[in-house]
Amino acid sequence: MSKFYGIGVGPGDPELLTIKAARVLGSIDVLLIPQTQKDKKGVAYTIMEQFLRKNIEVVYIDFPMVADEETFVDAGKQAANIIISQTKLGKSSAFVTLGDPSVYSTYGYIVKALEGKVEIETIPGITSFCAAAALANRPLVEKDEILTIVPMNASDERIDAALKVGDAFAFMKIYKREERVANHLMKHYMEEDGILVQRCGFKEAIVHTDVIESLHENTDYLTLVLSRKEEVV
Amino acid sequence: MSKFYGIGVGPGDPELLTIKAARVLGSIDVLLIPQTQKDKKGVAYTIMEQFLRKNIEVVYIDFPMVADEETFVDAGKQAANIIISQTKLGKSSAFVTLGDPSVYSTYGYIVKALEGKVEIETIPGITSFCAAAALANRPLVEKDEILTIVPMNASDERIDAALKVGDAFAFMKIYKREERVANHLMKHYMEEDGILVQRCGFKEAIVHTDVIESLHENTDYLTLVLSRKEEVV
Repeated sequence: MSKFYGIGVGPGDPELLTIKAARVLGSIDVLLIPQTQKDKKGVAYTIMEQFLRKNIEVVYIDFPMVADEETFVDAGKQAANIIISQTKLGKSSAFVTLGDPSVYSTYGYIVKALEGKVEIETIPGITSFCAAAALANRPLVEKDEILTIVPMNASDERIDAALKVGDAFAFMKIYKREERVANHLMKHYMEEDGILVQRCGFKEAIVHTDVIESLHENTDYLTLVLSRKEEVV
Repeated sequence: MSKFYGIGVGPGDPELLTIKAARVLGSIDVLLIPQTQKDKKGVAYTIMEQFLRKNIEVVYIDFPMVADEETFVDAGKQAANIIISQTKLGKSSAFVTLGDPSVYSTYGYIVKALEGKVEIETIPGITSFCAAAALANRPLVEKDEILTIVPMNASDERIDAALKVGDAFAFMKIYKREERVANHLMKHYMEEDGILVQRCGFKEAIVHTDVIESLHENTDYLTLVLSRKEEVV
């Protein structure tokens, strides 16, 4: 049966793909890749290139980095149409996404546009926040702690409210919003135990423990911050 | 160089181990496994048994399911002593954990007890909440949504505060606390879009869309709930 797969390729290291992701990538006929910049293969492609079978058909889907909702819905429909026609031809296809397909991925737009028209299987991936915690050999959460994943495209008001109630935090989408992250960390007394992780999952990955200073200097898109409230003794 | 590894084996399916986890499991000399019940091999062991090399040394570490902080600290020290002596003998060792080693794992107690005495590498794993979302082909979070991981051993008061501010939620450690989860979902109008996932990652995995009813009937330890606030149109 030809099927459509949504595949998480993890944070960057090809060895952090699951065995299942690697196996499925080696079996599909058509690969759909989100293209955020013209003429660029994209990070997801370079991570999993080695697992693809020879002569695989590659289709780029135009998912711009910054766009309105309508553009994303249209891109999802464009992808869905390709997937539906490939499935009718008896071909299996996959859409790949950095990290995990269920966490801030444009994959959701494709699933919605497919609306039960083809068989779908989602293969989870290692999230950047788990990979960053692993790189630093530190827990994200223990015991009864609440973990909150904070996307920095949310409003300051909502972020502030979330920081008040949680114990541990992963700040995502921080690129070009570094000053706001620094302000939130300082406001909630979380700079001491914070780390900034750049290019987690790649060979050049770095863990910075001077989080405020590193935020001021950050110029890398693939960056996140982990922090936690200081324990009240 | 002999090294100590903390390895996440994912939610249950051996194919959801990363390529790296499988490779390292095949190379180590000594395997440390958390034992929660006497004379039971444990779920983590059955998931990764096939990747271990023949004649590997297996050491069980007594991490009881319910215990006070001191018991866990002692178990961490016990594990650390074994790891340190094995490392001195030039042997590599690993501690395995279901899901990801940084998310509610007893692995943190071992890392603390080792305090830089040996070289440590943590290998991340697929979390149960990512695997559950994948199984249901639904996003955990999109766009600017805040994702909160709520452990049901936290107090009702803290859980209530967290539910007020987030958009999407994964409820963990729900076994024997199902009524409390149901009450929280109903209080915050989240039962409509909730799912209960049992034995996610295993062959017998089930996604229940009637979340409140399924909570009343749940008898499975490996169960979690995903939910989100209904969109205000």
